[in-house]
Amino acid sequence: MGFWNSFIGSRLPTKIFFKIKEHKLFQAVVIAAIVLSALVIGVSTFEVSSSYKTIFQIIDLLITIFFVVEISIRYIGEPQKQLFFKSGWNIFDTIIVLISIIPLGPDSSVLLLRLLRIFRVLRLISAVPELKELIEALFLSIKRVFYVALLLFIILYIYASFGAILFAEEDPLRWKDLGISMITLVQVLTLSSWEQVMLPLQRTFWWSWIYFYSFVAIGSITILNLIVAVLVDVVTSQKKKLP
Amino acid sequence: MGFWNSFIGSRLPTKIFFKIKEHKLFQAVVIAAIVLSALVIGVSTFEVSSSYKTIFQIIDLLITIFFVVEISIRYIGEPQKQLFFKSGWNIFDTIIVLISIIPLGPDSSVLLLRLLRIFRVLRLISAVPELKELIEALFLSIKRVFYVALLLFIILYIYASFGAILFAEEDPLRWKDLGISMITLVQVLTLSSWEQVMLPLQRTFWWSWIYFYSFVAIGSITILNLIVAVLVDVVTSQKKKLP
Amino acid sequence: MGFWNSFIGSRLPTKIFFKIKEHKLFQAVVIAAIVLSALVIGVSTFEVSSSYKTIFQIIDLLITIFFVVEISIRYIGEPQKQLFFKSGWNIFDTIIVLISIIPLGPDSSVLLLRLLRIFRVLRLISAVPELKELIEALFLSIKRVFYVALLLFIILYIYASFGAILFAEEDPLRWKDLGISMITLVQVLTLSSWEQVMLPLQRTFWWSWIYFYSFVAIGSITILNLIVAVLVDVVTSQKKKLP
Amino acid sequence: MGFWNSFIGSRLPTKIFFKIKEHKLFQAVVIAAIVLSALVIGVSTFEVSSSYKTIFQIIDLLITIFFVVEISIRYIGEPQKQLFFKSGWNIFDTIIVLISIIPLGPDSSVLLLRLLRIFRVLRLISAVPELKELIEALFLSIKRVFYVALLLFIILYIYASFGAILFAEEDPLRWKDLGISMITLVQVLTLSSWEQVMLPLQRTFWWSWIYFYSFVAIGSITILNLIVAVLVDVVTSQKKKLP
Repeated sequence: MGFWNSFIGSRLPTKIFFKIKEHKLFQAVVIAAIVLSALVIGVSTFEVSSSYKTIFQIIDLLITIFFVVEISIRYIGEPQKQLFFKSGWNIFDTIIVLISIIPLGPDSSVLLLRLLRIFRVLRLISAVPELKELIEALFLSIKRVFYVALLLFIILYIYASFGAILFAEEDPLRWKDLGISMITLVQVLTLSSWEQVMLPLQRTFWWSWIYFYSFVAIGSITILNLIVAVLVDVVTSQKKKLP
Repeated sequence: MGFWNSFIGSRLPTKIFFKIKEHKLFQAVVIAAIVLSALVIGVSTFEVSSSYKTIFQIIDLLITIFFVVEISIRYIGEPQKQLFFKSGWNIFDTIIVLISIIPLGPDSSVLLLRLLRIFRVLRLISAVPELKELIEALFLSIKRVFYVALLLFIILYIYASFGAILFAEEDPLRWKDLGISMITLVQVLTLSSWEQVMLPLQRTFWWSWIYFYSFVAIGSITILNLIVAVLVDVVTSQKKKLP
Repeated sequence: MGFWNSFIGSRLPTKIFFKIKEHKLFQAVVIAAIVLSALVIGVSTFEVSSSYKTIFQIIDLLITIFFVVEISIRYIGEPQKQLFFKSGWNIFDTIIVLISIIPLGPDSSVLLLRLLRIFRVLRLISAVPELKELIEALFLSIKRVFYVALLLFIILYIYASFGAILFAEEDPLRWKDLGISMITLVQVLTLSSWEQVMLPLQRTFWWSWIYFYSFVAIGSITILNLIVAVLVDVVTSQKKKLP
Repeated sequence: MGFWNSFIGSRLPTKIFFKIKEHKLFQAVVIAAIVLSALVIGVSTFEVSSSYKTIFQIIDLLITIFFVVEISIRYIGEPQKQLFFKSGWNIFDTIIVLISIIPLGPDSSVLLLRLLRIFRVLRLISAVPELKELIEALFLSIKRVFYVALLLFIILYIYASFGAILFAEEDPLRWKDLGISMITLVQVLTLSSWEQVMLPLQRTFWWSWIYFYSFVAIGSITILNLIVAVLVDVVTSQKKKLP
């Protein structure tokens, strides 16, 4: 025990584990384990015989252990321990590994257990550098996306309030209250069979096309604004990278 | 009364009210009042007991009074009064507050009253600076959007005229006159179940696919033109901002 | 007659008519006439009493005469006659005016007459300078659009051939021959209720999702390519305009 | 035979065949042959009398022979033989010609024969330089498209796993296992009648809108990212071309 502590305390294991964690083979094994984990989750949704289920549970346990070992190696292999949890990706990986250990207790619901396993597949993103870059690029424009989403929500809220007050009696299934009206308007915004929402109202209220067309026009222009904003953000950040 | 007039006339209240209106807490309270107003509108669309309705009416009255006070503070706090109504956002706020005072008379319709309240939610846009910027950016390309919308309307009008003349007898529900034909063609333009409009006509008129495909192609290219135009406008205005 | 010829021959009418055609009032009257023409066409599609129909026919005749006079003024007012038909817009206007004179004979079909009148609305595009610019901008990328459309047609043709051979027996209504298969695939390409095309086939051919997904993916990427190409063309031509 | 070998061995045929293959007429004949081949394939899908079928088979045989001759001319006409198979387009053409010769044996299935003929239409892309450029431009961003597609697949896989576990009992037709869930989610991602997938679940699980809205939002942003990435790639490569 004293040996172990001094082993951990010394710089030696950090060096060894750093070499392990930076090794291409280690990274390939991690990706393989994540893919195997995903396959087990996927195959489990099909009807399988109980003997297979036992095999899956064993594989699942092994993967859980492997992930704990892997995150430990990466932590010990980190030369500067205080930096480990400053990286969003390390926190991301640790949380995903933790939520798949916690419900190992005997009385936790099987359904919840299966659902929590699925989050492991997300680790594929942090394991493949190209996918990490993609996600980081998405976060560049997160602020703009948030405000455009807020604007879209305000527009949706206003139109849903009008809809719930005006159309509730005519078509209660789609406009009974603000909640149901918002679900209906999201469908209209995605232009999915939206004429089936408008045409029945059109018979009673001749002006209902103004309500729907203005909503679709304002909503589309807001989303168009989002696309343009993201594009400008990405192009601007690309130019900064270049000399 | 004489005191009040001299109080208003002096520069003192302007300074005090300017400090109030620029204070972060004041701005936060305004946003909170707008959100509360929106929540009351939203919850009212659900079935609620009459005791809640009374509470909502009291809250509504308080918010109305608060908004009048708030706009007064902002007007008095404005150092140069003549500039107040030169800002589009001030006019926007004042109109919204005014239309929610006017129908306070006892015999105005309850429905109209509820509808006019909804416009208050729009004040969230003028209260949050980031949303104000978004809307101002949208107005940059308003001229282009107008002309592309005009072009789209001309295309729609021409195709709807053809449709009303050619298909009215075959499918009167969708092509009876110019108005109904335009509503049908807007559905086709949004590509929402448009094959259900075309396929029945296809049986009688073998050439109807030419009508629909050319309309969808021309309409899509016009909308694509809009996206490109807005993008070029935004990028150009972004470059002007940079040195 | 001799006077008239010498009048036409002299430079005098050119100068007068040039002043007329460049006058803002003349241009406004032309736009008003086109809009009136469009309104008559539109209102005619509604059920109207026969007395109105007579009025419409008179207005229509007057507009036809006005358009002939207008195009004559513009031709005579053109300082260099040989340049008149070098402008695409002049040819465009002349053809539209001509096709609405030709069928004035008594035995031409009423339906054809009404259809040919609709083309007059197109003159609004050549009458409003901003719309002219929009259309000219669209023609900038016409070459690229043509080749992307050709590529899309080849992809459609190949998939429709496969579809007609493989699915004709299973679902003859949608895949009987190449023509019907192409109409079905255009629907799939616009993503309009395309799952209703795929799901019935999925039951018989488990691999049919590969056919549909690959088609949607390849088709979407080709259209995306079109958007990008048009954007690059417009931005490039914008940069050339600037110093 | 000795003469033939020495003929092939000498530089003379290379020069003659090079002139042939670079001749505009030769290229036009090749395009004509491909179009004829496509027309035969297309017309065959319609019901035709057996006498026409014989004609089609003869044309088909002639085209097959012509394509073999054509690819031979291009190979012999290539001054540096080792470069011939370094060009992706030459390999592309050769493979397409080969797969239409191989099944000429008497006992190969007629269906397979017809299907393999369709690939010939693809040669139109390599025969028209503008289409070749389009495809080459598409390959510029192939790496980015691959990783965004991978990200989209991971998102789809995770949501489909959740869907298969949570909704399988409620709506087995759409969520029975991972495979069927993924097909359902692709439909949702294309926004095609997706409300018909969500609304039945909404009745049982009030939170199902969170599942669908988050999926649509994350999926749309990922696809938006793809569009932006392709755009940036194309613009960057365009700038490199310019001085």
